[in-house]
Amino acid sequence: MKFKIAILGTGNVASHLVPALENAGHTITEIYGRNLEDAEKLTEKVYVAEAVDDLDFSESEAEIFILAVSDAAISDIADEIILPEESILLHTSGTVPLSILGYSSASYTGVFYPLQTFSKGRKIDFEDVPFLLESEDEETLQKLKKLAKSLSPNNYLVKSKDRLALHVAAVFASNFTNHMIRLSEEIMARQGLDFEMIKPLIIESISKSLEIGAKKAQTGPAIRGDFGTLDSHHHFLNYNEQVAELYRLISQDIIDVN
Amino acid sequence: MKFKIAILGTGNVASHLVPALENAGHTITEIYGRNLEDAEKLTEKVYVAEAVDDLDFSESEAEIFILAVSDAAISDIADEIILPEESILLHTSGTVPLSILGYSSASYTGVFYPLQTFSKGRKIDFEDVPFLLESEDEETLQKLKKLAKSLSPNNYLVKSKDRLALHVAAVFASNFTNHMIRLSEEIMARQGLDFEMIKPLIIESISKSLEIGAKKAQTGPAIRGDFGTLDSHHHFLNYNEQVAELYRLISQDIIDVN
Repeated sequence: MKFKIAILGTGNVASHLVPALENAGHTITEIYGRNLEDAEKLTEKVYVAEAVDDLDFSESEAEIFILAVSDAAISDIADEIILPEESILLHTSGTVPLSILGYSSASYTGVFYPLQTFSKGRKIDFEDVPFLLESEDEETLQKLKKLAKSLSPNNYLVKSKDRLALHVAAVFASNFTNHMIRLSEEIMARQGLDFEMIKPLIIESISKSLEIGAKKAQTGPAIRGDFGTLDSHHHFLNYNEQVAELYRLISQDIIDVN
Repeated sequence: MKFKIAILGTGNVASHLVPALENAGHTITEIYGRNLEDAEKLTEKVYVAEAVDDLDFSESEAEIFILAVSDAAISDIADEIILPEESILLHTSGTVPLSILGYSSASYTGVFYPLQTFSKGRKIDFEDVPFLLESEDEETLQKLKKLAKSLSPNNYLVKSKDRLALHVAAVFASNFTNHMIRLSEEIMARQGLDFEMIKPLIIESISKSLEIGAKKAQTGPAIRGDFGTLDSHHHFLNYNEQVAELYRLISQDIIDVN
């Protein structure tokens, strides 16, 4: 089943979704950007999409409208957008509840959340991206499943309340692991040490964690209860009070949960 | 250059090093364990090593003695061990300074620190393990390099002071990333959600971080300055005060360093 789809937004998610949807055989009818130039730039990635900066879609041929904008912008656009009859309005956020689309002019609403970290200029293989789907309308849900399956074999039905939990879990698993690596990079750079030394350790740690579970995979001074090392590390970090406190608190939590 | 080596210790590092050293062509003469049974178990992994629980090595044929014991045990064993003439005593710790071996009966001392996370029952490919080497004696350092090269192409000369920084960086990169994944697992489990959903996100996050650097790789609510989402996540976590505080502090640090 191929769809005619309008994309609202020109950010990381939109710019990855647009070519992927076209590659999957769907037609991108319009790309909306508050800034028309951004929308025009994104239309260059596909064959036919029209760039627009007006939220009146009453004449659009699209059946599905995907809001790929910042969480804060979702409700404003949902309230303003003028949609044709029988159209489906979706958002792509991990945080915002489905109900935020309830006051829109859409006949049907849903959530189409790709659980992945998108950065501009970095290619994402959508086959590896799980899609988290939600709708209160059964027929819409079936269409969402078909849309998701056209991009990736992994899709899950997840209610708004669970999606919030999932997004919190994703922040720990993605943004916070990345920040731990960032802090590691900075400690090495500050000492003039080559970060390459640490990369094999990171790769093995994460592989082990995903394979046997993070609980069993844990090693290091905190889980060993090696307070001498914890103290010397904490003392080493006293050039940055906040990072020292982070070291203390994470070590404490490792001790407490084990 | 092949060495005759005695291993002191029966833990994770020792049990990975012993077969790897033998595979590289060295001879393991003795394996010391405080508990003789543990030492005997480890000798089963190699052809000829003798299990011992006595620190008198005056009759040993080994030239190199590797202390692969907990940080806290290093100085006691170093002080007690009786070594033959012209022997080299090494420790494998990321935290303990070289000078801790200074009161031993060894002619030469050094550090032979494999920067990797070792768990029992999990095979490590030593080719990917960087070895961090230190000695104040140039000839010993050359032997250490040869020993390290027989296991892995990656070896670095790192002084005690830098090794402490490196170990702190390694804790962030390995133990703390693992703990972030642990917390993510728990949030998912608590909500009855399948952790498989999040694995592709973790793999992509880490790959991106290692490829373009964690600073450029960061995404998520903190770096976007999306305080609405930060508040809703923090509120969601109020069933566990310490984890909520961790969420707040890590998010704050992401905001502050960017």
